[in-house]
Amino acid sequence: MQGNGRFITFEGPDGAGKTTQIKKLAAYLKEKEKPFLLTREPGGTRISDAIRSLILHPGHTEMMKETEVLLYAASRAQHVREKIIPALEKGVIVLCDRFVDASIAYQGYGLEIGVQKILEINDFATGGLTPDRSYLLDISPEQAQKRLIARSGETLDRIEQKGIEYHKQVRYGFLELYKQHRDRILLLDGHQSEEAIFSLIKKDFESI
Amino acid sequence: MQGNGRFITFEGPDGAGKTTQIKKLAAYLKEKEKPFLLTREPGGTRISDAIRSLILHPGHTEMMKETEVLLYAASRAQHVREKIIPALEKGVIVLCDRFVDASIAYQGYGLEIGVQKILEINDFATGGLTPDRSYLLDISPEQAQKRLIARSGETLDRIEQKGIEYHKQVRYGFLELYKQHRDRILLLDGHQSEEAIFSLIKKDFESI
Repeated sequence: MQGNGRFITFEGPDGAGKTTQIKKLAAYLKEKEKPFLLTREPGGTRISDAIRSLILHPGHTEMMKETEVLLYAASRAQHVREKIIPALEKGVIVLCDRFVDASIAYQGYGLEIGVQKILEINDFATGGLTPDRSYLLDISPEQAQKRLIARSGETLDRIEQKGIEYHKQVRYGFLELYKQHRDRILLLDGHQSEEAIFSLIKKDFESI
Repeated sequence: MQGNGRFITFEGPDGAGKTTQIKKLAAYLKEKEKPFLLTREPGGTRISDAIRSLILHPGHTEMMKETEVLLYAASRAQHVREKIIPALEKGVIVLCDRFVDASIAYQGYGLEIGVQKILEINDFATGGLTPDRSYLLDISPEQAQKRLIARSGETLDRIEQKGIEYHKQVRYGFLELYKQHRDRILLLDGHQSEEAIFSLIKKDFESI
C-alpha cells in the first residue's frame, strides 16, 4: 500500500523546532534530487485546510473535545487518501508535520479522552497507514512557551492558549508513545542546537 | 441524563416530507404551550453549521467517504453537547431533523462503510444519547427525486446529486434500522397525504 515511498513524520509540541527540522530535511532531499512531498496536519488539502481553519479559529471557544477529535480525524482522512497515499505509491518520500501521534498526545493525554478511542477513530481515518519513521522533538513546556512568545507579533491560536498543565500532559503523552514505539520513533532533545538535532536526523534518515 | 425532556427525531430521505411533518409537530406543541426546540442535522450550532457548509458544498466533489463520516460525527458531537442535552435537561421536547439513523442509512448502507464502524464513531460523538422516538418517513427514490426537482429553482446539493442506486441502498438501510428498532422507530408511508401522516404522528406522540 505504501509503494516505494517512505512516510516520515515530525512530532512534538509547538515551539520544539519541528518546522525548522522538516525544512532542513526537505532541503537535504532537494540537494540529493530525491522526490519528496512536504505537508502538514491539520491541513494538506483544500478540504483539510478548511477543516484546519475551523479547528484553530481563536473564536471557537465553545468547541467540545469530541468535536475537536473528530475534526482532526476528518482532516486526516482526506489528507491521507487524497495526498499522502498517492505520493507514497509513486515512490515519493512524504515528510509530514504531525500525524496520529499528535492526536494521541494532545487529545488522548492532553484533553484526557481515552487513548483507545483516539486510536480507533484514527485507524478509521487513516485506513491503518503508519509512518515508517517519526522524529519526536521533546522540549519542556516552559521553554516552548518562551519560544512561541518570542516569535514576534504572532498570535497564539486556540490550542496554544491552553495552560501549562495541559502542555505537561501532552509532553507526557509523547514520551509514553516513544516508550511504546522505540522501533519507529526517534526521540530528539529539542533544547539542543538546530544543527546538532539535524545531524542526528540526517544520520538516522540515511540508515533507514 | 435526558432529564424530563423527550428526544424525538425525524428520519428518511430528502423529499419524504420530514420538514413538513416536523413543522406540524412543532406547531402542535406551540398550540399546546409545551416547551420545545426545533433543530436539524447536520447543523444546529454555530460550529455545526460551519461543518454543514463544508459537507454540503457542491464543489467539494473530492471529499472522501471517511472524511464525510467524520465530519457528520463532528457536527453531531457539538450539536448534542451544546444544544440537545442542555435542552433535554431543562425538560424541553427536542425535535431533531435527522440523527444517527441517517448516518447509518446514508453512510453505513449508502456509501457502504461498515455499519459497525459508523455506530462506534457515532457512539463517541453522541456519548450514547439515543432518541426516545424516531419517525421514519419512507418513500421510493423515484418519488423523492420527482419532489426534489419540483421544488422550484432549488439546486441539488452534493448528497442529493448521487444516483438512484445509492438512494435505493439508503432506503434499504432505513428499513433495516426499522426492523431492528421497532420499539423506537415508527415507520410512516411518505406517499400518503401530509394530513394523514401527521395524524399518525400526533396519535403516536400523545401515547409515548
